[in-house]
Amino acid sequence: MNVALIGAGRMGSIHGVNAGRHPDLRLKYVVDPRPEAAAAIGDPFGARAASLDEALTDPDVGGVLICSSTDLHLTHALAAVDAGKAIFCEKPIDLNLAKARAAQDRFADARLVLAFNRRFDPHFVALKRRVDAGEIGRLETLHLVNHDPAAPPPGFIPTSGGLFKDFTIHDLDLARWLLDEEPVEVFAAASCLVDSEIGRLGDVDTARTVLKTASGRMCVISNTRRSGYGYDQRIEAFGSRGMITAGNVADDTVQTLTDAGVSSAPIKPAFLQRYAEAYRAEMAHFADVAHGRVTSSVGYPDGVAALVLAEACDQSVRTGAVVRL
Amino acid sequence: MNVALIGAGRMGSIHGVNAGRHPDLRLKYVVDPRPEAAAAIGDPFGARAASLDEALTDPDVGGVLICSSTDLHLTHALAAVDAGKAIFCEKPIDLNLAKARAAQDRFADARLVLAFNRRFDPHFVALKRRVDAGEIGRLETLHLVNHDPAAPPPGFIPTSGGLFKDFTIHDLDLARWLLDEEPVEVFAAASCLVDSEIGRLGDVDTARTVLKTASGRMCVISNTRRSGYGYDQRIEAFGSRGMITAGNVADDTVQTLTDAGVSSAPIKPAFLQRYAEAYRAEMAHFADVAHGRVTSSVGYPDGVAALVLAEACDQSVRTGAVVRL
Amino acid sequence: MNVALIGAGRMGSIHGVNAGRHPDLRLKYVVDPRPEAAAAIGDPFGARAASLDEALTDPDVGGVLICSSTDLHLTHALAAVDAGKAIFCEKPIDLNLAKARAAQDRFADARLVLAFNRRFDPHFVALKRRVDAGEIGRLETLHLVNHDPAAPPPGFIPTSGGLFKDFTIHDLDLARWLLDEEPVEVFAAASCLVDSEIGRLGDVDTARTVLKTASGRMCVISNTRRSGYGYDQRIEAFGSRGMITAGNVADDTVQTLTDAGVSSAPIKPAFLQRYAEAYRAEMAHFADVAHGRVTSSVGYPDGVAALVLAEACDQSVRTGAVVRL
Amino acid sequence: MNVALIGAGRMGSIHGVNAGRHPDLRLKYVVDPRPEAAAAIGDPFGARAASLDEALTDPDVGGVLICSSTDLHLTHALAAVDAGKAIFCEKPIDLNLAKARAAQDRFADARLVLAFNRRFDPHFVALKRRVDAGEIGRLETLHLVNHDPAAPPPGFIPTSGGLFKDFTIHDLDLARWLLDEEPVEVFAAASCLVDSEIGRLGDVDTARTVLKTASGRMCVISNTRRSGYGYDQRIEAFGSRGMITAGNVADDTVQTLTDAGVSSAPIKPAFLQRYAEAYRAEMAHFADVAHGRVTSSVGYPDGVAALVLAEACDQSVRTGAVVRL
Repeated sequence: MNVALIGAGRMGSIHGVNAGRHPDLRLKYVVDPRPEAAAAIGDPFGARAASLDEALTDPDVGGVLICSSTDLHLTHALAAVDAGKAIFCEKPIDLNLAKARAAQDRFADARLVLAFNRRFDPHFVALKRRVDAGEIGRLETLHLVNHDPAAPPPGFIPTSGGLFKDFTIHDLDLARWLLDEEPVEVFAAASCLVDSEIGRLGDVDTARTVLKTASGRMCVISNTRRSGYGYDQRIEAFGSRGMITAGNVADDTVQTLTDAGVSSAPIKPAFLQRYAEAYRAEMAHFADVAHGRVTSSVGYPDGVAALVLAEACDQSVRTGAVVRL
Repeated sequence: MNVALIGAGRMGSIHGVNAGRHPDLRLKYVVDPRPEAAAAIGDPFGARAASLDEALTDPDVGGVLICSSTDLHLTHALAAVDAGKAIFCEKPIDLNLAKARAAQDRFADARLVLAFNRRFDPHFVALKRRVDAGEIGRLETLHLVNHDPAAPPPGFIPTSGGLFKDFTIHDLDLARWLLDEEPVEVFAAASCLVDSEIGRLGDVDTARTVLKTASGRMCVISNTRRSGYGYDQRIEAFGSRGMITAGNVADDTVQTLTDAGVSSAPIKPAFLQRYAEAYRAEMAHFADVAHGRVTSSVGYPDGVAALVLAEACDQSVRTGAVVRL
Repeated sequence: MNVALIGAGRMGSIHGVNAGRHPDLRLKYVVDPRPEAAAAIGDPFGARAASLDEALTDPDVGGVLICSSTDLHLTHALAAVDAGKAIFCEKPIDLNLAKARAAQDRFADARLVLAFNRRFDPHFVALKRRVDAGEIGRLETLHLVNHDPAAPPPGFIPTSGGLFKDFTIHDLDLARWLLDEEPVEVFAAASCLVDSEIGRLGDVDTARTVLKTASGRMCVISNTRRSGYGYDQRIEAFGSRGMITAGNVADDTVQTLTDAGVSSAPIKPAFLQRYAEAYRAEMAHFADVAHGRVTSSVGYPDGVAALVLAEACDQSVRTGAVVRL
Repeated sequence: MNVALIGAGRMGSIHGVNAGRHPDLRLKYVVDPRPEAAAAIGDPFGARAASLDEALTDPDVGGVLICSSTDLHLTHALAAVDAGKAIFCEKPIDLNLAKARAAQDRFADARLVLAFNRRFDPHFVALKRRVDAGEIGRLETLHLVNHDPAAPPPGFIPTSGGLFKDFTIHDLDLARWLLDEEPVEVFAAASCLVDSEIGRLGDVDTARTVLKTASGRMCVISNTRRSGYGYDQRIEAFGSRGMITAGNVADDTVQTLTDAGVSSAPIKPAFLQRYAEAYRAEMAHFADVAHGRVTSSVGYPDGVAALVLAEACDQSVRTGAVVRL
């Protein structure tokens, strides 16, 4: 199946390459206003630059990979669904919940994979498989750690949607995926401890969020924009008979022991290294969905549900109160 | 220095033995209505059963170890301070904050060590030393895990003071000790997931608490009455340049590798095993305090401050709102 | 640069794919008497089946990847060097030391990379970098663990060259690489503990080898044909100021804790999974060597030197005595 | 039961205190030519200095702890057995194999515990229990690591008996205990890499020893007098279905993560810290043996058997050949 990549930025280069290498997908077009960026991704795979129209009207194109800027995700997704294409779409689906909700019906029959990549990470997949197999009895609580290595440049903040819609949204989706029950209460405490410029722009850089479901199960999410020690990505799942954890991945297994102690390699520095396998696995899932072999495991409604929770986090920080959904 | 043990229950047997073995302390009396319990602790050290009066009026007794039931802690501590004795007192100082506050002035000059044992755990001490040495820059956030292995019998609940005053209070003290700044906002989410009988008695068994200081630093506390995998006692400290963690202790270092994977020993099953060294270290600190060699590192005001936070947790659960102090 | 793959077996399929994906190499031919095997590797890269002659006489072919059966390695390498091709050659260079030595001069100017893949493993590379940086002072002793997961079928044994030339040879090369000094004494103790059929065929399946250099430094090599717990690949390097270790790699980081203990994933099951990165890295080194950008870090003389040690191991087992070189 | 400690040196102070604290033993005498050394150990337990004669002729003394210098172990043990005392004796039983053998019959009925402390280490005990339970099928090979942190002063060497009788002897006993089969072949390679003065005195400081049993099972022993990274004490046991390892113990569980990597505490620095529990457990075993509750698990014949192997190691190093027993 031929696919077109829309957006040749950072995420586009990851997904474009993975599509290009996937045996069931062929990267045919790269859509980006910057020809050299499009060529850098497309050339090794024989893909050529094209306009959005050209890509969407080509009947030989079966799917699109939407890696444009966040404010265009929904516009591009709607155009693609209207053109009958299978859709791989970067998160979030939109920053505006009302707008996202309003469009939801139009994706009812879409073959759409939303790029919540953590659902495809082999470590997290192994954790979920063990939880679902009942190894720790009934799942009761979760602890999710998602710490970015270093704060983004302040220029990124104004269009980012803020910490919760841009960053925590991954964890909100993870919580829904693992708990398999919707949170009904949201409390978020947040501070600006990393970069005061982020605060001046109205955002926060450090947060702790508590979700609670109707049955009383809870999830804590730990976020910071700057860890200082790499890309900290962990899950702890607590059940009635035990705990299952998924930990960080180190660069290598080497340990040095001296009389000063034991030292070993840092954890993976950033998402590119940490989630390389997850990105390949989610593209493989898209190939399966696009070919109609399976239904999408993470679709438009998941994007809306995560956005609902992200807005609740924003509201909780703004009001200092618990938000009940 | 001769000391008298008040209360020959579970904690009394730990502290009595540690005092008996300490080179600078001599266990002279054990005060308990049950003679056989008193003898079981006292006999190996040549200590004899005595009444409270006898112990407190003996001028050769320099200190008392208060391990009586919680509702008597304050009464015994007041009697001891009036008798001019050095005091080692189990936590909490009292379940009633107003009462505890009202008595505070009477301990202004006391040589009193409050038994927040986690402050003396060698793992947590090593963590604090590294944090204080600036190894991770400025401390920003904390994650404290305190999971009991198995729920107490429901009969324990009514006089326990509830999860926060009985159990979380250790973590509230740890948070104050590590942050070195008072929390000004408290939010606690809690459920009854372990034993519905606990809920029927008006208590909770699972909680997540978020503390926030005036400078925006945060601490999350994770509690359950039943882990199903042992006594989970961990700290994660996050700073501007890294993370420092203190983990669980396993029974041994043995690992078995087969084609089914790697298996190793459980973590320590309960407080007796996990905090054996901490109990010895806090008794050594009491010996130093009692002899006037150092001032107490954890005194009456720390007991009151932790109680303030525990009451705020209770109030947050009751009202579903953030409590501002 | 166009390359031809000679031999479309198990190793050929690894190296053929890695060459095909390398940006500086183009897989043009696959040489194998079994057309379907050749096609399985070549087709995805547009390579076609060819005879050895065709491949070696094509002036557009700059290099060959020799993955034929062990008894043909040297014949194919000689043909390739005569044709002026760069050579990537699977180990061992030959099973007959005299023959290998006799041919050595003909490779004096060859651009040849011998596939001692462990030298390219990122974990072992990181270990060597730390050793060479002096992190543990002067390197004194080594412990190398190389345990295969499961014994080969007995039919493999007669043409394998035996445990030392087929399997231990990797460790003998590792020892030379890490010690940077030639062993002068070799002692090998060996048994047949895994499969008595291996013993009936005159081979051993379990061995412990001790190498000693002129300066008294030592290396122990631990080998078994069947570990029962995966592909155990480890190095321990001991120096005057400490130890550096490189450990096994697990399938994932997930841990399950229950009251029965801690369990986690098995180590990598076999060489394909464990050394996937090493195979890519050695092909990248070959690309650099073939293009004349660097000289080979592991050439024909290394193959001969490892064979010398392997023969010494054989002799030590046969005679029950130390072999002095 | 009253016991007398013979020898108030380093080991005497460990065993004397453990006997003094054991509920079933009472330290009555300390025998040592240096009164202040005897008093330092005996005073806290109310034990007094005495001559050897006085201790051995006192009918109220049931056992002796022989911690004298190595050359007196056998003399003191013979005197004790003649006096009908239970005997706890430091290793080695003697440095002279012929002498040790000649005396063996006199201990036929003795209640004697030889202080091979590693047999009582909880980590190694747990490993053996798992091996014996068949968790890895049939035990095939062993790897024992015994690395001292820092070389002894050269003055210690001449009376030490040399590396194998003084130090490796622990591992030789471990090998016999774990394999439950006598080695019949011994090869030892050794060097002087740590301190040339040790070599000048005719000893070695670094060794690798390979033992082989009649059934072909093997054990490698790794020794150095100076690790540079603490007291490295490990076992790896390989069986037909897997591996069981017992690792080092760290001072605490604290880990620091920064962008430079992960650092944690050193391993235990020396035998006092590493084997504190083992020393207590072997004294508890002696108490049981002395009271006739159990028979000794490690007696005089074990001391002789280990000495046989240590002499074989010496001979192998001297001759450069395998020694067959």
